[in-house]
Amino acid sequence: MADPAQILRERTADAWFDLAVQRTDVLLLDHANCEKKAASTALALMFSYPEDFDLAARMSKLAREELRHFELVQQRLAELGVPFRRLSPSRYAEGLRRALRREEPGRRVDLLLCGALIEARSHERFMGLIARLPAPLAEFYASLAAAESRHAGLYQRLAARGGLDIGPRLGELAAVEAELATAPDAQFRFHSGTPS
Amino acid sequence: MADPAQILRERTADAWFDLAVQRTDVLLLDHANCEKKAASTALALMFSYPEDFDLAARMSKLAREELRHFELVQQRLAELGVPFRRLSPSRYAEGLRRALRREEPGRRVDLLLCGALIEARSHERFMGLIARLPAPLAEFYASLAAAESRHAGLYQRLAARGGLDIGPRLGELAAVEAELATAPDAQFRFHSGTPS
Repeated sequence: MADPAQILRERTADAWFDLAVQRTDVLLLDHANCEKKAASTALALMFSYPEDFDLAARMSKLAREELRHFELVQQRLAELGVPFRRLSPSRYAEGLRRALRREEPGRRVDLLLCGALIEARSHERFMGLIARLPAPLAEFYASLAAAESRHAGLYQRLAARGGLDIGPRLGELAAVEAELATAPDAQFRFHSGTPS
Repeated sequence: MADPAQILRERTADAWFDLAVQRTDVLLLDHANCEKKAASTALALMFSYPEDFDLAARMSKLAREELRHFELVQQRLAELGVPFRRLSPSRYAEGLRRALRREEPGRRVDLLLCGALIEARSHERFMGLIARLPAPLAEFYASLAAAESRHAGLYQRLAARGGLDIGPRLGELAAVEAELATAPDAQFRFHSGTPS
């Protein structure tokens, strides 16, 4: 399988990883939120395009996998005794949402391409975390990483169905994504930018 | 396991089952919608009460099961060659929603009790369908029925956590549910009333 990071325009800064290693409590709490949100995004696609059985079947399976990951992250939080707290979301998802085209069929393509970018960014950060975190957490992230990579490929293939050339639009959205993931950011989250 | 139908105030009319057997296309199409909606309702509880790890873990697992059922219903629709069409929702879910208390902690209890009632009604209808449908579809519903029964019990136990006496409120909501499921209804859906 191709490295999903190939579609990302910028690599995550080392400073983000340095902070993540120090703030594993926030990392895991926000990671749980992200898995839940990923399931909800897949479900939203099923509700928006119910006539597309192929899309619905794939999104349903993907949502089940995200939910399973959510359960595993929650178990890890419980094992580590991390007290729950509500975290405000990062600017990332909202920033991508603003870049979506409003009209069909563009909106659907954009939703799928953003799905690919989010999964690719998650995979890139997982890989960096695996290299830097202590063994138990590194192994945990290693156990989840393959799915993110598969999901990134799935979203790209779904966007490209019917022979659509997704290259130009993917490039535009990747530029937005890269800015959100790497511009200075006062907040630390799973998808936050470079610590400012 | 206790029969989940014990919490229902009224049995589904034979006339509903008679119509369901004639309209298996609408039955299956709306059943797919219901499984998707059940997953989305479980996810909504996870987003509303994220501090409750036990609730979140159980709702996540339940949502995965509903999604798996959705996939199976979709496969069955494809095998039978039922053409997709969008169906307006029945009055059932909206009618239950209107009965929910607005303030916490009552709202949460009501959401869980409505979850129990919906699963119990679904189980009751599955059992009636199993007795009336031709073998392939009857076997299909038989394969799904145990989960609905388990889910009804799970929702009741979650509502009763902390020793809460759920009896009186369950009775009130069961009366609303029974009216929605049995009063004359011009529309046929998985949770519609008695055909008028």
